Amino acid sequence: MNEVIETLLKHRSVRDFTDEKLTDEQIQTIVESAQRASTSSFIQAYSIIGVTDEAKKERLAEIAGNQSYVVENGHFFVFCADLHRHEVIGELQETEVSSTLETDEKLLVAVIDAALASQNAAVAAESMGLGICYIGGIRNDLFAVKEVLALPERVIPLFGMAVGVPASVEDQKPRLPFQHVYHENTYEANPERIKQSLSDYDALIHDYYMVRGSNPRKDTWTGQMGRMLSKSTRLDVKDFLKAQGYLKQ
Amino acid sequence: MNEVIETLLKHRSVRDFTDEKLTDEQIQTIVESAQRASTSSFIQAYSIIGVTDEAKKERLAEIAGNQSYVVENGHFFVFCADLHRHEVIGELQETEVSSTLETDEKLLVAVIDAALASQNAAVAAESMGLGICYIGGIRNDLFAVKEVLALPERVIPLFGMAVGVPASVEDQKPRLPFQHVYHENTYEANPERIKQSLSDYDALIHDYYMVRGSNPRKDTWTGQMGRMLSKSTRLDVKDFLKAQGYLKQ
Repeated sequence: MNEVIETLLKHRSVRDFTDEKLTDEQIQTIVESAQRASTSSFIQAYSIIGVTDEAKKERLAEIAGNQSYVVENGHFFVFCADLHRHEVIGELQETEVSSTLETDEKLLVAVIDAALASQNAAVAAESMGLGICYIGGIRNDLFAVKEVLALPERVIPLFGMAVGVPASVEDQKPRLPFQHVYHENTYEANPERIKQSLSDYDALIHDYYMVRGSNPRKDTWTGQMGRMLSKSTRLDVKDFLKAQGYLKQ
Repeated sequence: MNEVIETLLKHRSVRDFTDEKLTDEQIQTIVESAQRASTSSFIQAYSIIGVTDEAKKERLAEIAGNQSYVVENGHFFVFCADLHRHEVIGELQETEVSSTLETDEKLLVAVIDAALASQNAAVAAESMGLGICYIGGIRNDLFAVKEVLALPERVIPLFGMAVGVPASVEDQKPRLPFQHVYHENTYEANPERIKQSLSDYDALIHDYYMVRGSNPRKDTWTGQMGRMLSKSTRLDVKDFLKAQGYLKQ
């Protein structure tokens, strides 16, 4: 196994950082690594915002549900799907681009572009001995995030990423069985096989939660997912996407 | 610079592979690396389909616009946003989950989850000396891809990934300037600064296209983007997303 695979396989989210700040060089390497990810037809439809202002970090932490590690970390990035610069390109090239930018296809393009970049950032940071945690909680109030970061039209803040020197490290959660996630040639949609696979995984996750170092509890994956999915949340995401110029066509 | 950052920074898409097939062990390592990526609230909302059937590969290549490397590669993966198993979990847990699964928020969650996993797969493959190319072209006809791969409801094939031993390697395209992509505390939306930055980048890309090894041409990035974005494509993505049970709430 090479050093890269090792880095990928030992990933776990870190939610507890020392107060050591990232250096400018570290930030630059992380962003440049992000930028080297593949991008759909060379479109580069994302931006990354580094948040260092304490008041802004506190506001973002509040939006994200009072997660302390949104404030207390070595650096906080916000990854945005971004077709704002492409709107400007329309002006420069005197071409009508808005109707294309408003399609669902371009929403997918921008979200995927931003996510690929962010995962390169995560891997780069971890390879330097830093820990990371994705913060989807900023989607609790996208209108507020827009205000905090002064985002123009066509910019969607997708998630934050707290990065820093780990102060403590959590256990690694087992993932879904390989055979359940990986299909060959056609999707394995037999409900009985899916249920069997989920039941096997539930047993594994039950054992994980019972014996893990911190906060052991009795739970299963399907139980956890069932509880989470019984409540719809972030219902204004659609309104925000539309307000930012997406989902129109 | 460590080996991981080196791998990330030297990425370029590979569109020309030898006929050497990936081993089962390589496929497993790639998929397991993908599975270790972060996932929103542990939801694991994606599936990966390995396509080895020649007829299916040919059909996917045709859908993607006759890209030969969709057929001729070491392995072909399709990455899917997937909340199908969560629908089954609703049944198992006797909980109504459909209205949550239909929200735009859960579409974002599943698309981001799948993209993070895919980028780990790409990095893992490249670390083994393999080349990769994302194939967004499968979105040219998502209804057809659904048929080829027998996808149930709540599964969205986002893109393919051709992986294999590189037969030839392309030059590396310069990315947008760091200062243009990376913002601090607030989004830099001054149109004059954006235009200046795009103009600098155009000069860089112009030089790149003029001197690159294969197929030199006279072009700029904004010119290329303007042409691409003047035509709306894949207008049935919205219909497909709705048909698969998304964008409803």
